[in-house]
Amino acid sequence: MSLFHTHRARFEGAQAACRERFCWSPFPELPAKVPDAAQAQARGLAAFHSHLGQGGTRAFDLGQPGRIGELGEEVSPYTRQPLGIRYPQADIDVLFAAATAAIGNWAAATIDTRIGVLMEVVDVVYRCHLFEIAQSVMHTAGQSANMAYAGSGVNALDRAIEALVYADQAMRAVAPRARWERQFGPSKIVLDKTYRLVPRGVAVCFSCASFPTWNAWPSMMASLATGNAVIVKPHPATVLPMAISVRVFRQVLQAAGFDPNLVTMALDSSSEPIGKLLVRHPQTAMVDFTGSVLFGQWVERNAHPALCFTETAGCNTVVLESCDDLDAALRSLATTLCMFSAQMCTSPQNIYVPRQGVRTPQGTVPLDEVARRLADAVAALTGDPKKAAMILATIQSDQTLALLQKMQAAGEQRGRVLLQPRPYAHPEFPDARTSTPLMLQVGKTERDLYGEERFGPISFVIACDDGPDALRQATTDVRQFGGLTAFLYSTDEPFIAQAEAAYAQAGAQLTINLTGAMPLNFAAAYSDYHVTGLNPAGNASLTDLAFVASRFRITQSRRPAPASTSNA
Amino acid sequence: MSLFHTHRARFEGAQAACRERFCWSPFPELPAKVPDAAQAQARGLAAFHSHLGQGGTRAFDLGQPGRIGELGEEVSPYTRQPLGIRYPQADIDVLFAAATAAIGNWAAATIDTRIGVLMEVVDVVYRCHLFEIAQSVMHTAGQSANMAYAGSGVNALDRAIEALVYADQAMRAVAPRARWERQFGPSKIVLDKTYRLVPRGVAVCFSCASFPTWNAWPSMMASLATGNAVIVKPHPATVLPMAISVRVFRQVLQAAGFDPNLVTMALDSSSEPIGKLLVRHPQTAMVDFTGSVLFGQWVERNAHPALCFTETAGCNTVVLESCDDLDAALRSLATTLCMFSAQMCTSPQNIYVPRQGVRTPQGTVPLDEVARRLADAVAALTGDPKKAAMILATIQSDQTLALLQKMQAAGEQRGRVLLQPRPYAHPEFPDARTSTPLMLQVGKTERDLYGEERFGPISFVIACDDGPDALRQATTDVRQFGGLTAFLYSTDEPFIAQAEAAYAQAGAQLTINLTGAMPLNFAAAYSDYHVTGLNPAGNASLTDLAFVASRFRITQSRRPAPASTSNA
Repeated sequence: MSLFHTHRARFEGAQAACRERFCWSPFPELPAKVPDAAQAQARGLAAFHSHLGQGGTRAFDLGQPGRIGELGEEVSPYTRQPLGIRYPQADIDVLFAAATAAIGNWAAATIDTRIGVLMEVVDVVYRCHLFEIAQSVMHTAGQSANMAYAGSGVNALDRAIEALVYADQAMRAVAPRARWERQFGPSKIVLDKTYRLVPRGVAVCFSCASFPTWNAWPSMMASLATGNAVIVKPHPATVLPMAISVRVFRQVLQAAGFDPNLVTMALDSSSEPIGKLLVRHPQTAMVDFTGSVLFGQWVERNAHPALCFTETAGCNTVVLESCDDLDAALRSLATTLCMFSAQMCTSPQNIYVPRQGVRTPQGTVPLDEVARRLADAVAALTGDPKKAAMILATIQSDQTLALLQKMQAAGEQRGRVLLQPRPYAHPEFPDARTSTPLMLQVGKTERDLYGEERFGPISFVIACDDGPDALRQATTDVRQFGGLTAFLYSTDEPFIAQAEAAYAQAGAQLTINLTGAMPLNFAAAYSDYHVTGLNPAGNASLTDLAFVASRFRITQSRRPAPASTSNA
Repeated sequence: MSLFHTHRARFEGAQAACRERFCWSPFPELPAKVPDAAQAQARGLAAFHSHLGQGGTRAFDLGQPGRIGELGEEVSPYTRQPLGIRYPQADIDVLFAAATAAIGNWAAATIDTRIGVLMEVVDVVYRCHLFEIAQSVMHTAGQSANMAYAGSGVNALDRAIEALVYADQAMRAVAPRARWERQFGPSKIVLDKTYRLVPRGVAVCFSCASFPTWNAWPSMMASLATGNAVIVKPHPATVLPMAISVRVFRQVLQAAGFDPNLVTMALDSSSEPIGKLLVRHPQTAMVDFTGSVLFGQWVERNAHPALCFTETAGCNTVVLESCDDLDAALRSLATTLCMFSAQMCTSPQNIYVPRQGVRTPQGTVPLDEVARRLADAVAALTGDPKKAAMILATIQSDQTLALLQKMQAAGEQRGRVLLQPRPYAHPEFPDARTSTPLMLQVGKTERDLYGEERFGPISFVIACDDGPDALRQATTDVRQFGGLTAFLYSTDEPFIAQAEAAYAQAGAQLTINLTGAMPLNFAAAYSDYHVTGLNPAGNASLTDLAFVASRFRITQSRRPAPASTSNA
């Protein structure tokens, strides 16, 4: 049985979900529900430990060509100890040559073959490497075990499959051949036409420090499914999850009879970055970039003639105008502000509240009280170290701690500190880099303070004139600084309709009046479109047809049909 | 009945043709087969004459805002007299503001509504303006009446419908809404999600001097169908066909209740071009460009952050290796070299022939004889003024005549002149700007001579070592200088397969062993993909999903389902 047939039912399930966008996943949401969960977790932990230097260093072998040295500077946010893993440093010209050489057979394979092999990659990651990758995400990105399993594991795999579904759809829209007959004057011309899908070439896929697999897996799948090769450029702080991924891709490709150099890794160090070299390399046909606004904008400006698909970051906004149950709304907001210490591209930052307060069935609650109750809700979630560990996890980098200090000082001068950040003692990892959130209350005049992404657990309650002013401020943030998600609480249906239209224009995905157990910024593969491409938070959406349709091109040849078949 | 229903059968016919790529058109191929052809042609001629200055000048009213003056410098290649038409010169900021203001209602309309209105535009052009536009194409671009009817008329309308089919397909791939239900721990979350299609904004559509409607109509349709507005920037030499088109779009949009400023025209003069201002305008969201290589490359480099879709030009190549019927092959090549004096982006230029000659069933025909017989075939087609007028039509600009002289002089020095260009006397228009083709025979060392597009009736027979060398030279031209079409004659199936693969990699659409009544470079809407985007001849293909899918973006909002419907 071919790999395509092996995975056909799962693929068809994903196709139906993409079409109708209902809730679906072939994977269990919780680690405990994985078959043989305890054993699988133990194996994953052991596999993770086998990569570590254990005080010294240990080489991670990728089996890829062009080795010119080794690099590795990862430090666990949980132990603050170096992982001690040394990865191959590659001559990038050699990687490009190897990637280019690998494309031929892969591009010539059928769509079914490529989809089958890539679904096998998904399956091998799921069955054999999920907990190993989860551990590696914990000890590089600093996520909690549950988030590493879900957000960086099965949800990212769902997004990988989703990209395959769209790639498949775009490719199948092209007829492989046609018979074309037309009269030209007295004579009939009968042509047989053949249409070929030709990949662009080599894609460079940048993955980020805090959520490495989330966009990288679907981006890699989009390029590979359409016949291209991929060079992965991980953030030097978060390499291991991508190194394991690259190795799995290579192994599955090779086992299926293809050149493993279709997927390689180009690593750099924070002191000697190679990102610009990769983007400007003459053999770069496409760039997928997830990372900082600053470099993302450089990529967008400089990728030409390569195509580029970016997701950077934004000022995600909340408009809290009125609600039926203020406590429930504040609990949901507090949870979302704490989730992975707001180191998610979907975390809210700027919370706009009318100066006169928030209307509720119990009367209007004054702004200051709303701000205090929100801060109390955050404090309640983070007061107990065990609960804090589950939700806040760790702070990925020292820079974020420094930013917290700086923003606290600015907040003290220019507004009110609603909640001071402080380290909390992680129950399992006493040396973990942690912080509870910083919350500030400011006026609209402090726009330079909140008018950009402040990465990490930093949020602002901002006093506005009224609901329409809050909406105007919020959507201006989105247009000007970017925005992926947005959150609205209102009981006023005309105002909701206005907000839907305004956020649609600004290009942020809006969640309205949601309370309860779901994190507000939860993004469901197959159902939620991630990033719109309409504002500075990124130029692409994962995953829509536009994300895949230009990764291949169509060429054709045509010739007179054989006389015996043409009735000419 | 809505416009969508009125045109539904025609649209569904086009959808089937795009899917299976068979030969189809709702329009008659020949002007004589149009209902009431004689009357329609007479009305078209009268309408064309009503636009002309008749020795003075006459204003062409578009009813668009921002008028700051008037411009018009068109000269008929047939009469070499100014058309005397003065078009509005517009303040481009006013046009952008008007276009932006027009988008709201149009974007909010249903897909069916927009497709229906745009199919109505196609129908109104066909029923009421086809011969008027054909006359205007003749007297600006200089095409023959038949080509103006077909290539710039019904075939361009077919391409317009084709773009609508793909836009419709890309938009319908997005579910308008979904119900999403998931357990989070003990509680079930039920969300209603709404997905909106949001247009990019204002597209600028550049049309070219020699084939104005061919790419402009489908580009306009692709942008409009997806909810955007379009500002048309015609080449100053060829304005009238686009001015008539813009007026029809505006009338039909207005009659359907939409703001006519969805389509406006920004005209410049050859002495004061505004192309760069339009491309760099902060409100430009997309650029569709058809025109010169030089400016096209500038557009590709400078359009960011606007998307751009380009078609420029290339060195289209022929490999003549072996054939069953040399005379038939040479006749087909000769016809294609003459068609509209090779002022088509699909016209062949570089004809590669093995030095030892072309293998035929009658033995190998030496290179010099092949070259001579090809030149004879061209001479035979152009010797009689009446036949010449049908096939060569006119030379669009004086620059092309100058280039012919220059290339002839170079050819005399560096190779052999197979055929000297000379004016022919057009039977109906004695003052027409005409020339028979220039054909040169050169060696591979003269690459600087033939290694770029030499616009107009200029071709080169180039001696190569052998078939594989011819293929290598030809596909190198395509990769380096661009190429849209390619033509191969060979009886050697392995060599054909090699050529198919090589041209697919280079990105030129290959026609193999075609002889007979069909012009070799005939491109059929719904069946042939025009431009691949793989080489410098352009970065887009008309029309595939990639041409339309990124012209709109997807935004969403989600909120808890009403309790009564959610079973929660």
